[in-house]
Amino acid sequence: MKINLNELANRFDFDQIGDTNHEVDGVATLDKAQGNHISFLSNGKYSSLLKDTQAGIVIMSKDSHESYSGNKILADDPYVAFAKIASLFQNSSQSLTGVHHTAIIAESAQIAKNAVIGPYSIVGEDTVIKENTVLDAHVTVGDNCLLGSNCIIKPNVTISCDSHLGNRVIIHPGAVIGADGFGLARDVKGWIKVPQLGGVSIGDDCEIGANTTIDRGTLENTVLENDVRLDNQIQIAHNVHIGAHTVMAGCSAVAGSAKIGKNCLVGGGVGILGHLEVCDNVTLQSMALVTRSIKKAGSYSSVSPIQETKEWRKSAVRIKQLDKMARQLSKLEKNKSK
Amino acid sequence: MKINLNELANRFDFDQIGDTNHEVDGVATLDKAQGNHISFLSNGKYSSLLKDTQAGIVIMSKDSHESYSGNKILADDPYVAFAKIASLFQNSSQSLTGVHHTAIIAESAQIAKNAVIGPYSIVGEDTVIKENTVLDAHVTVGDNCLLGSNCIIKPNVTISCDSHLGNRVIIHPGAVIGADGFGLARDVKGWIKVPQLGGVSIGDDCEIGANTTIDRGTLENTVLENDVRLDNQIQIAHNVHIGAHTVMAGCSAVAGSAKIGKNCLVGGGVGILGHLEVCDNVTLQSMALVTRSIKKAGSYSSVSPIQETKEWRKSAVRIKQLDKMARQLSKLEKNKSK
Amino acid sequence: MKINLNELANRFDFDQIGDTNHEVDGVATLDKAQGNHISFLSNGKYSSLLKDTQAGIVIMSKDSHESYSGNKILADDPYVAFAKIASLFQNSSQSLTGVHHTAIIAESAQIAKNAVIGPYSIVGEDTVIKENTVLDAHVTVGDNCLLGSNCIIKPNVTISCDSHLGNRVIIHPGAVIGADGFGLARDVKGWIKVPQLGGVSIGDDCEIGANTTIDRGTLENTVLENDVRLDNQIQIAHNVHIGAHTVMAGCSAVAGSAKIGKNCLVGGGVGILGHLEVCDNVTLQSMALVTRSIKKAGSYSSVSPIQETKEWRKSAVRIKQLDKMARQLSKLEKNKSK
Repeated sequence: MKINLNELANRFDFDQIGDTNHEVDGVATLDKAQGNHISFLSNGKYSSLLKDTQAGIVIMSKDSHESYSGNKILADDPYVAFAKIASLFQNSSQSLTGVHHTAIIAESAQIAKNAVIGPYSIVGEDTVIKENTVLDAHVTVGDNCLLGSNCIIKPNVTISCDSHLGNRVIIHPGAVIGADGFGLARDVKGWIKVPQLGGVSIGDDCEIGANTTIDRGTLENTVLENDVRLDNQIQIAHNVHIGAHTVMAGCSAVAGSAKIGKNCLVGGGVGILGHLEVCDNVTLQSMALVTRSIKKAGSYSSVSPIQETKEWRKSAVRIKQLDKMARQLSKLEKNKSK
Repeated sequence: MKINLNELANRFDFDQIGDTNHEVDGVATLDKAQGNHISFLSNGKYSSLLKDTQAGIVIMSKDSHESYSGNKILADDPYVAFAKIASLFQNSSQSLTGVHHTAIIAESAQIAKNAVIGPYSIVGEDTVIKENTVLDAHVTVGDNCLLGSNCIIKPNVTISCDSHLGNRVIIHPGAVIGADGFGLARDVKGWIKVPQLGGVSIGDDCEIGANTTIDRGTLENTVLENDVRLDNQIQIAHNVHIGAHTVMAGCSAVAGSAKIGKNCLVGGGVGILGHLEVCDNVTLQSMALVTRSIKKAGSYSSVSPIQETKEWRKSAVRIKQLDKMARQLSKLEKNKSK
Repeated sequence: MKINLNELANRFDFDQIGDTNHEVDGVATLDKAQGNHISFLSNGKYSSLLKDTQAGIVIMSKDSHESYSGNKILADDPYVAFAKIASLFQNSSQSLTGVHHTAIIAESAQIAKNAVIGPYSIVGEDTVIKENTVLDAHVTVGDNCLLGSNCIIKPNVTISCDSHLGNRVIIHPGAVIGADGFGLARDVKGWIKVPQLGGVSIGDDCEIGANTTIDRGTLENTVLENDVRLDNQIQIAHNVHIGAHTVMAGCSAVAGSAKIGKNCLVGGGVGILGHLEVCDNVTLQSMALVTRSIKKAGSYSSVSPIQETKEWRKSAVRIKQLDKMARQLSKLEKNKSK
């Protein structure tokens, strides 16, 4: 696809400066871009690249574009502008159309006319799949599910029964939605499985990363509100509730019945213990372990700083002696003041 | 399914008080339950909900039921009782029966008459699948495997060759049993793969979570004894041995040849290094890293407490200075005593 | 397969001592081996097992074999020698041949004559699969991919479009190559997905563990150089670059655009933040969090040592007081010197 500066600016209502007929057919970084590419500058750190860039068009901030004399699109937030423009150059890859002849669809399932069910995909009883939703290959959807419109479900995803997805939900390969929560009761002879009878409810515009798992609730639903974005390999346990616009980076895990607020930013590898609450607008730094409810917006951390192992060994030994040290110190202070 | 108080109590030999003919057809939490639901109180923290609950029947402890005058079932452990009763209301979802015409089963495989092999599932040579075991859709079982009776294998599970499962084993979607262990020898030019020739041996009544991985052994088997319960996204490396009734929460990982005792409770995100031993009855708190063998039953922890990031930064700097601080302190103490 | 001492030694050019006609047909550990097994001693810790071993042949170090009088193969590195010899006894499991009749292959795909495409596997448009490469069952390969020769792709692997693999790459079950990176721009109403238009480039001789995920790049490729070895459940974010011969243990995670050098050893559960650089020959101990670039080869750690929970609680409280303690200490020192 070729598109010129003028068309780009008009489509998204951005300002433009330069040769309005200049055409681009792809996106690239400032240092790799050629004349047929559009590029962007959103981080001032890279502004020195402007000098030598060969990009045909550059998306940049309204505030600081004077130094660049090439073709440009001006936006309040160049990264948002880039996201919008780059989507035009995405390979739609819609070789998939209609219902593949190898798909297995239960009789009672309702598939919208222009939904796509890919090869070897399976749709269970009483499941409803709405307009323009695409199930790629090898997707398994259980009974009693609802998939809204314009969803994209990638290969090898499993959606177990009683899972409800809103509109425009994207689920990446290998993710598992609605597996049994981890519920066990200890009986005399061993563990008894607690039946998991709730479902999963995922709002509009959510994105679920590759190999991420979201368990069904025990009695009520596990809930993701609208516009929740989960990276890869995340574990969401039964009855967790995640507020709108919250973003979690890879390998984070939330234990059962924890409630996370809206607009939180959860770093990679973070753990949140069960039955806790994290309020709105909390940032959790990577690999933090949340062991108590957080009631005040802000940024939280818990991991020790990295050191060379030989230095770390000395610190590690002392961590165990910390209480003794503190008491010695306190004693010395008292003596001093005598 | 409808069932009345009398039938419920008799079926599991629980005590009952109230209208023996009262019927329920589902389970719900105390605050959501209606007259047609059975609910439960196992955590004293929620006892205030009894006052307003609309539940038709409540399962509660023998010791403290006087305050509630509704229909009730009395049990020594209300949570165990709930687990048993709730299983009656589980959607059996057995639309699956027999061997689906798209299943691919090797000639030498032995499938018990009433086992179920779902759509697009594959069973390898010389593999034996016993009575009532259900392979859901898209399950791949390699050669020389044994699956005991009454197992449930969910969609997209891979069971590689030489894996042996006991009876009543449940494996959730996306789990991988018997992939090669991570064995490498460093040769002059680079890494050489160490062949992984052992298998996986999983006892009776084990449950394996979604996207959990259990590697085959190098020469001998990786072993889970009976009634081991693994949550989602857990990694069990080659030649690990896990004792009976041990439970591991999501995202934990056990490195090669580690041996974990019986009745251990392993929190989420815990790491256990290779070749270590953890004795019976050990509790490992979430995200602990086990760097040495644990020879004494008890509870163990290792992660720093969470703090606001700006406070944490101050602590983090000091952690690196700890050894110096300790030596200063010790010097001051000596001076004092002079 | 049976093979005698003489044939084994000659095939790999190792020294031999003993009955050159002694035949073995399998491998086993020193304590389990019988006369028909070959075993090995690579860790001096186990040398006491030599006394009682029944092994038909033992692979051992040239330097310290005198104490053992049985049949033996002498090697500079007995573990490397074992890896090579054990590969002879590996079950080739090549029941798979040719293109299975249930495989779905796009018209424009090019499959080498002796490549294997297993049951229910899918190959996209313009994808090239070279000689001797084996796709096991339920493998999904997208459009515009290149798989070199002699690769082994296990069941349930997803390889998204624009992924390039070198030769002799092994990918274990459930791994996802080339899912969208986690790119989001914050707009007024919520998050906007940043299109992920780059690919994944994996060098020769790489091995990717079960359920590991490697995201495609945003504009340029995510890159693994030759002989990179990734264990299970690892997360590699978009635009990460991993140098040759680097090895990562299970559950590690690398955030976007981080660059890891050659010959690094990354322990289990390690986290590496985005946009950092780790130089060559760095060892990261298990569960370390890399929060800054590492510019000096060596070993690094960051996790607190494990303690009994009741002791740990005391340390944990004091960690929060560390800055205060340090300031008290410094004051006491000053007073002293007055």
